[in-house]
Amino acid sequence: VKISVMGTGTVGRALAARLAEVGHEVVVGTRDPAALLARTGPDAMGSPPYAQWQERHPEVGLVPAPEAGASAGLLVNATAGTASVAALTGAGLADRPGLVVLDVANALVFGEGRPPTLAVANTDSLGEQIQRAFPRARVVKALNTMNCEVMVRPDRVPGDHVVFLAGEDADAKQVVSGLLAELGWKGSAVVDLGGIAAARGTEMYMPLWLSLMGVLGTADFNIQLNRG
Amino acid sequence: VKISVMGTGTVGRALAARLAEVGHEVVVGTRDPAALLARTGPDAMGSPPYAQWQERHPEVGLVPAPEAGASAGLLVNATAGTASVAALTGAGLADRPGLVVLDVANALVFGEGRPPTLAVANTDSLGEQIQRAFPRARVVKALNTMNCEVMVRPDRVPGDHVVFLAGEDADAKQVVSGLLAELGWKGSAVVDLGGIAAARGTEMYMPLWLSLMGVLGTADFNIQLNRG
Repeated sequence: VKISVMGTGTVGRALAARLAEVGHEVVVGTRDPAALLARTGPDAMGSPPYAQWQERHPEVGLVPAPEAGASAGLLVNATAGTASVAALTGAGLADRPGLVVLDVANALVFGEGRPPTLAVANTDSLGEQIQRAFPRARVVKALNTMNCEVMVRPDRVPGDHVVFLAGEDADAKQVVSGLLAELGWKGSAVVDLGGIAAARGTEMYMPLWLSLMGVLGTADFNIQLNRG
Repeated sequence: VKISVMGTGTVGRALAARLAEVGHEVVVGTRDPAALLARTGPDAMGSPPYAQWQERHPEVGLVPAPEAGASAGLLVNATAGTASVAALTGAGLADRPGLVVLDVANALVFGEGRPPTLAVANTDSLGEQIQRAFPRARVVKALNTMNCEVMVRPDRVPGDHVVFLAGEDADAKQVVSGLLAELGWKGSAVVDLGGIAAARGTEMYMPLWLSLMGVLGTADFNIQLNRG
């Protein structure tokens, strides 16, 4: 399937490269490709310039957002959560009824000298916001509970560990489950939490994840469920 | 150590019985013991009448809140999170500088036809609220990420799985770690997340926990951390 990845940061790059590696035709969509490629310094999150990454990944095209939206057989939202609805609007998602949107984003707000908070939480979630903004899209929240290297290579973490799905459309969740399998996720690792409102739980796990990253000293970790 | 448990619901009962079982002198504190014992119907959360439980647990005393607070060598907060500060005020916690408070509560708000939300989240937590309300108490948030039966008998869940600590006082966390060991928690299962602000993460995990309980069809589960 033709996959368009919205988001040019670490998460978008990791997903784009790996989805291409497993055989998909992948483009990254951005507002202004020329401006992005012209940048020579790190981005807002400290990632190296996109042009450097692009050189190592000629298999991944870089296209304007509307082109990414129009050509997508499946759209991945890997933008910063606080900018996702705007970015998906720019990609013309409103004009793509039925399109499967894999939303891996978290709406983190970083502030000086305090732990990051969520721009949306508790009574709403980013996944629900996106689904409401694009009611004809088929949004599936997944992969947002781990580092992007673990998203695309789950075997970086030893043993069994889980990935959550939330979304209204069973077929769309099936499509995303297929993608997860291609990335290396076992079927038994995929936990379907139900409708898109369950994105609240997976997004609200982020503060615990951030604490754990600090304590464990690595982002290469994930959780497993044990039951009696 | 003499332990006073604030909270007469399922969680308070489970903790009180088990802490007595492992050898502590345990009382449960409540505003009006006579009124509680006179009730013949289930409580607000559907638990059977306290008097029934009391009959099976004569080893656990029931005392007025101020008496529970005054006699406590360690205080357990197992009240509903939305009522915790009021309950701890009633127990005279302000007059017990240095007292170790094990806070296992979550500030869940139940509403008709929608998933429970948290009364405090994201930029604050119940653990922090309690610590701010009683600045001289030594609050340790722990055990709030699982069902009360798992809290007190971790071997109900097979394999390794974790319990989190958050609090400002290292000695108080040491005391709570000792209690956890008595309940059956391995040392390797105890994950110290740092200061009390880390309670945000463990409390915000609750919506995911509630989803998982629904999907797994049991409350007898917990998470394990796997790291690369």
